[in-house]
Amino acid sequence: MSNTNLKQLAAALGLSISSVSKALRDSYEISAETKKRVVEMATRMNYQPNPFASSLRRKKSATIGVVIPEIANNFFALAIDGIQMVAEQKGYHVLTYLTHENNTNEVSTVRHLLGGRVDGVLMSLCRDTQSVDHLSSLQESGIPLVFFDRVPEQMSCPTVTTDDYESGFRATEHLIQSGCKRIACLSLSHYLSISNKRMNGYMDALKKHGLPVENELIIQCTNDNEYNLSLIKTLLKGRKRPDGIFSTVEKLAISVYYVTQEMGLEIPKQLKIISFSNLRTASLLNPSLSTITQPAFEIGLEAAALLFRMIEKKTFGNRIDKLELKSALIERKSSERINKN
Amino acid sequence: MSNTNLKQLAAALGLSISSVSKALRDSYEISAETKKRVVEMATRMNYQPNPFASSLRRKKSATIGVVIPEIANNFFALAIDGIQMVAEQKGYHVLTYLTHENNTNEVSTVRHLLGGRVDGVLMSLCRDTQSVDHLSSLQESGIPLVFFDRVPEQMSCPTVTTDDYESGFRATEHLIQSGCKRIACLSLSHYLSISNKRMNGYMDALKKHGLPVENELIIQCTNDNEYNLSLIKTLLKGRKRPDGIFSTVEKLAISVYYVTQEMGLEIPKQLKIISFSNLRTASLLNPSLSTITQPAFEIGLEAAALLFRMIEKKTFGNRIDKLELKSALIERKSSERINKN
Repeated sequence: MSNTNLKQLAAALGLSISSVSKALRDSYEISAETKKRVVEMATRMNYQPNPFASSLRRKKSATIGVVIPEIANNFFALAIDGIQMVAEQKGYHVLTYLTHENNTNEVSTVRHLLGGRVDGVLMSLCRDTQSVDHLSSLQESGIPLVFFDRVPEQMSCPTVTTDDYESGFRATEHLIQSGCKRIACLSLSHYLSISNKRMNGYMDALKKHGLPVENELIIQCTNDNEYNLSLIKTLLKGRKRPDGIFSTVEKLAISVYYVTQEMGLEIPKQLKIISFSNLRTASLLNPSLSTITQPAFEIGLEAAALLFRMIEKKTFGNRIDKLELKSALIERKSSERINKN
Repeated sequence: MSNTNLKQLAAALGLSISSVSKALRDSYEISAETKKRVVEMATRMNYQPNPFASSLRRKKSATIGVVIPEIANNFFALAIDGIQMVAEQKGYHVLTYLTHENNTNEVSTVRHLLGGRVDGVLMSLCRDTQSVDHLSSLQESGIPLVFFDRVPEQMSCPTVTTDDYESGFRATEHLIQSGCKRIACLSLSHYLSISNKRMNGYMDALKKHGLPVENELIIQCTNDNEYNLSLIKTLLKGRKRPDGIFSTVEKLAISVYYVTQEMGLEIPKQLKIISFSNLRTASLLNPSLSTITQPAFEIGLEAAALLFRMIEKKTFGNRIDKLELKSALIERKSSERINKN
């Protein structure tokens, strides 16, 4: 049975070859019910797509596109290293596009990619993406698409992420164990699922330890550094200053350092902080910054491996892989317990 | 005379409209001599290209491409902010491509851009680009092309750069004035003109102050962080350790901090350092890092403004703008003079 071909599969199903092919590619032209039937029969008949034929048919450009929101971000720099490594092994070029955290750019980049110049797309959303229409169009065009880190929760699509909820929980619990009673959370976006998961972890850790969740301590930041600095200043100059900060993104932690330097606030004595970060200078800062460090290189590597399984038709279109990798909590000076004696 | 059109200009020159048009676009199909004749006559007859017609003829995509070598680099992050600002005013989208300091990626990105999806290209070279064949192809295709920061010296093309030689000179002189007698220079590439100009500034400052230029103190680094760390370790553990370092790129200065932390070497007491950098954490490091800070935002802004003058045909093809903007030397703790008493 191992050499069932597309024609035999189509005959067994009473469908055209084109319909079966589209169903296996998860095309929007085929109903969910038919897709289910096709995949069940393909599994039963041990149908294996011919990799050479499908490569000939589909490998138009030997190029994959990577769409990321931010430059000056070490997480993405490392993730791209992982992607690049896989792509090179496969003999593919990588075109990397930056959206600069701007949805308009993201939409126009997707429109550009729909032009069909790439064989697959890896993508991490920008902070203000709400509608996923442009992403659905890309998926429905049949171009293999994998999201990493910042993924659209509303869509059924392959993703590679990290344990955002657990990391938010652990980071907050670490601050509590270092003596913090009033912990603020700095978030980048209402719309990003990773931001919300990290924040939910923070809230649940507070609840577990009997600390109140206070709205005024949950700060929604923007993509504007100046504005974020003023938000953080307001927070730290307020009547009831927090004694701990959980920062969900690296650049907000840097802003906190700036504000404390200006105000003469001492970290970790008067304020403790831990942040999600792959910052190369984390251990060189004054004081060194405690971090939740994502396995950025591995995330890029796994996302690329998943994409190439789709490009090479080694996976069926209706199988949706969701991979989660664990982040590490690295304790440094910025969250150290101060023993009063 | 103000309404001379292309037809009248061509008639006055005894050339076809197409040849005149190509000459004004600096096409490789037209000889240098003819181009010179055309531009002289155009100036004499006060020929102004019709911006509306040329926009209709050429504005295919309302998109410009930006090609940069590195992510996790604050210089490029700021430059892109400047580019984005100009592009938004003009109603253009920006597609940003990363080459990851890799010439193969640069060549394939240029090939992609030759597909004609953009109306103009802004570009900064990767560290290992030697041959400019791919860049010449792009220029000869007629797509307006402006280089910024890392520019190809071998080509006649518009550029926006900073005062690299003077900055290297000033940085080195600053270290000498702080008491350094044995200053090393960390360079990123033999091929980049900006690296070489910064290094020439360094050498001339040494000579001016009667210090010898020693080959063993000029370190050619790579794009591999681990390798760079070992080069710097070898330098600092050597028999005759330098007492000052001039780093031509930000990431090498961070590597120096790592090595001194590991070795227990004190900055600025045992080693002083100054680096080209737009690092957001420069003033937060332990100790704070003295920098040569490039006007990154303005460089992006001016490069984009220049590109749009070309796209909108407000400049003649044979006029090559070379703009230079000044960098600032910011003294911080890492290069402070230590008074022995």
